[in-house]
Amino acid sequence: MTEFDTGLPSVRQVQTYIKDQQEVELKLSTDDLLIGKIIWQDSYCLCLVDHYNQPTIIWRQAIVYLKQKA
Amino acid sequence: MTEFDTGLPSVRQVQTYIKDQQEVELKLSTDDLLIGKIIWQDSYCLCLVDHYNQPTIIWRQAIVYLKQKA
Amino acid sequence: MTEFDTGLPSVRQVQTYIKDQQEVELKLSTDDLLIGKIIWQDSYCLCLVDHYNQPTIIWRQAIVYLKQKA
Amino acid sequence: MTEFDTGLPSVRQVQTYIKDQQEVELKLSTDDLLIGKIIWQDSYCLCLVDHYNQPTIIWRQAIVYLKQKA
Amino acid sequence: MTEFDTGLPSVRQVQTYIKDQQEVELKLSTDDLLIGKIIWQDSYCLCLVDHYNQPTIIWRQAIVYLKQKA
Amino acid sequence: MTEFDTGLPSVRQVQTYIKDQQEVELKLSTDDLLIGKIIWQDSYCLCLVDHYNQPTIIWRQAIVYLKQKA
Repeated sequence: MTEFDTGLPSVRQVQTYIKDQQEVELKLSTDDLLIGKIIWQDSYCLCLVDHYNQPTIIWRQAIVYLKQKA
Repeated sequence: MTEFDTGLPSVRQVQTYIKDQQEVELKLSTDDLLIGKIIWQDSYCLCLVDHYNQPTIIWRQAIVYLKQKA
Repeated sequence: MTEFDTGLPSVRQVQTYIKDQQEVELKLSTDDLLIGKIIWQDSYCLCLVDHYNQPTIIWRQAIVYLKQKA
Repeated sequence: MTEFDTGLPSVRQVQTYIKDQQEVELKLSTDDLLIGKIIWQDSYCLCLVDHYNQPTIIWRQAIVYLKQKA
Repeated sequence: MTEFDTGLPSVRQVQTYIKDQQEVELKLSTDDLLIGKIIWQDSYCLCLVDHYNQPTIIWRQAIVYLKQKA
Repeated sequence: MTEFDTGLPSVRQVQTYIKDQQEVELKLSTDDLLIGKIIWQDSYCLCLVDHYNQPTIIWRQAIVYLKQKA
């Protein structure tokens, strides 16, 4: 990633999930499936909070997919 | 990836799948096999929708291969 | 990869396999072993066709090794 | 990563954990979960010390997620 | 990798193995251990030949370690 | 990695281990744990020698963590 392009659809979709406090599922390279709400993103990481409001900083390099929680 | 080159065969092939609403199989680094239709791509991600029209944002770094659904 | 250098031995070897319609084995990061003929390469991907002429687009990031089919 | 941007939320959050001597959990790509306090970060690595004050240098490329120890 | 630096110790060591026709072991990210002689390297790949002189093109991204065969 | 920055703490720490002939443990992405003394580093690799003075060239991309041998 040479520069973080905030105009891209994927970045804007994450931004929409943040604004809507959408609960999401994040599948990681270790096969972990994390569930929570994204509270911020930057070019290296996303930050997810769980039901107890505990934040987890997730490295983008480890993200496989992201979807709305069913 | 220094810049996303939309003239490349791989990018154009994905664009054709989007236009044709072709059902595809996406094999991921976690060994998951996702099935659906691609609705957009950018330099970081592809977005796949399933039969219920639920979108999944897939990070390119996690893609192993892509083929038309048999 | 800053730019795709088509003069490199590895790129030219793949180009030779394309021209010769050489059947190859591709080992992937998921431990899948795909067999087929390469029909094109670009800086992100290779495209392999199987015996039924079905194309599979393989991301370079997922390639472990490539050899002629025994 | 083209240059290490110390102004980003993820980098500043790690910096806060360093200053607060916060005990953290680090999930790695090998599925290891390391526990300790971060004592420094640079653009390639984090350094974690355990209860015996033994340092472990962790490569950023291997980090999946980071959270406060529960 | 921005540019392939042929003056680096690691690149020169591989070059020495090529010149000496040294038999080596290559551990790959899939946990495969390949044995053979390196016949060329470029910025993307190494090429290994086995006892039957069959070449295998190995992507650098998949290399974990390299040592002389015991 | 755009350029290898020898002034960074992580690079200098490895340099100190080299100078001190410190025995270290290197955890790799394949879950291998190698033990030995680092004899050199460059921007792609570290070189580790074992008790029999046999060198192993380890690619940085495969390193998960590094610590002093207990």
